[in-house]
Amino acid sequence: MNWLKISSAANPAVKELKRLATSPRICRQEEKSIAEGVHLAKEILNRKELVLRIVLREGAEKNQEVSKVLQDLEILNVPCLQLTNHLFNEICPVENSVGIICEIKIPRSSALPRGEDIVFLDGVQDPGNVGTIIRAALASGVRNFASSANCAYFWSPKVLRAAMGAHFQCNFINTKNLAEIKALTGNICLVADARGGKSLYELKWDKRPVLWVFGSEGQGVSDTALEEADYRVFIPINPQVESLNVAMAATVCLFERKRIREAALVSQSTN
Amino acid sequence: MNWLKISSAANPAVKELKRLATSPRICRQEEKSIAEGVHLAKEILNRKELVLRIVLREGAEKNQEVSKVLQDLEILNVPCLQLTNHLFNEICPVENSVGIICEIKIPRSSALPRGEDIVFLDGVQDPGNVGTIIRAALASGVRNFASSANCAYFWSPKVLRAAMGAHFQCNFINTKNLAEIKALTGNICLVADARGGKSLYELKWDKRPVLWVFGSEGQGVSDTALEEADYRVFIPINPQVESLNVAMAATVCLFERKRIREAALVSQSTN
Repeated sequence: MNWLKISSAANPAVKELKRLATSPRICRQEEKSIAEGVHLAKEILNRKELVLRIVLREGAEKNQEVSKVLQDLEILNVPCLQLTNHLFNEICPVENSVGIICEIKIPRSSALPRGEDIVFLDGVQDPGNVGTIIRAALASGVRNFASSANCAYFWSPKVLRAAMGAHFQCNFINTKNLAEIKALTGNICLVADARGGKSLYELKWDKRPVLWVFGSEGQGVSDTALEEADYRVFIPINPQVESLNVAMAATVCLFERKRIREAALVSQSTN
Repeated sequence: MNWLKISSAANPAVKELKRLATSPRICRQEEKSIAEGVHLAKEILNRKELVLRIVLREGAEKNQEVSKVLQDLEILNVPCLQLTNHLFNEICPVENSVGIICEIKIPRSSALPRGEDIVFLDGVQDPGNVGTIIRAALASGVRNFASSANCAYFWSPKVLRAAMGAHFQCNFINTKNLAEIKALTGNICLVADARGGKSLYELKWDKRPVLWVFGSEGQGVSDTALEEADYRVFIPINPQVESLNVAMAATVCLFERKRIREAALVSQSTN
């Protein structure tokens, strides 16, 4: 790989990377983001066309994992920058990075999927929670995501990092309107709400795909979202605990759904 | 409340708080820790005898939530310190604190519980994961915890914060030896292992309480832990995802166990 060594903070590439690293709003505007770490660098090989640039901390190539992933990235034939330790830390969205970043193009939003489960995040603001939910959802077999306007941006560097590369196998839907998504897909809308409704374990599942709604950390789901609910769903928990964190709650719901879906498949094939 | 105002970094109380905030090792040695935030301050009212001191950032009492919890804490009759903004930030283990900290005494470890599920953490090093698991476990009805020596310290400020007060309703067991815990309790030992074993959804549950083992973020469970396994248990996931984060995996296991336990109770009461 041909490395361009940079040691000046005035370099335009460094300036751009720094803006992306510090502002999800700028990522959204410029349709670019920053994927930090070896794991994301590996996973992005699922979407090679998204990689714009590889950025390395001086000396990071001596790390065995980094050097291995650099070999895999070689085929991409994209510009490679090597930054001094100081500059790299300035543009890196996390502490203690191993020293590799991919600058990426954010792909176009997807049209509404038909016949598939969808996760709608309603004002979830912590990027760690948003990323964790994306990863857990994909692990449970759900790959479609939408969000309200006041949710952490799906493609911000912190959300990307928390999702550990799940983004590159998921669809992000281009409408922020829950009512519209529900109307156009015909999915059954299940709104997780710790305050009450129907127990997750007593739902009558039918053949319709699910439109899940998970709400914000503090307030839970919005009234607007509740209006769209076919069912409000709660997870029965030990009353000594006020509530589950939203990422935990989403994981429990999504894996119960997976269990039921697969049990139904087994019983169909047995009949 | 009688507030002692402090503005000098040389004050012995400030020095002690700073040491506790920065070193889990010192917390362990001195059997003291720091519980940050309104939520922990509320939850600690379940274990009033643990509070040693209340520490406030100058002006934080103007926050409505803080002022409300201060009223509840008044009955404790413990020393109250008010620190300048700068000093408070120096001793505060998190960014953007609302401005209240309780210095607490770490309670004695518990003897081994009999007839109850136990969670053993094997080298889980991220304090956020450890705290999240404690909270999710208590929400699922499990309140007994033990860990290997290389695990994040249960009572470190960051673990306390991530568990959101669950600590004050849990037991932390005074042995770090998994084999000993298994032998003395007779619990069935289920070791979560993404690499294989029996599916969580195909386990034959019996009446024995469970000794769960969840392993470290990178390597998973240790060989020593695997030797104690009655079953290695995996969560079937979409193969597009390498693995679930340990806190997510633990949550899925614990809530499936809760579902089964409660379904069994229902079927017993129906018979």
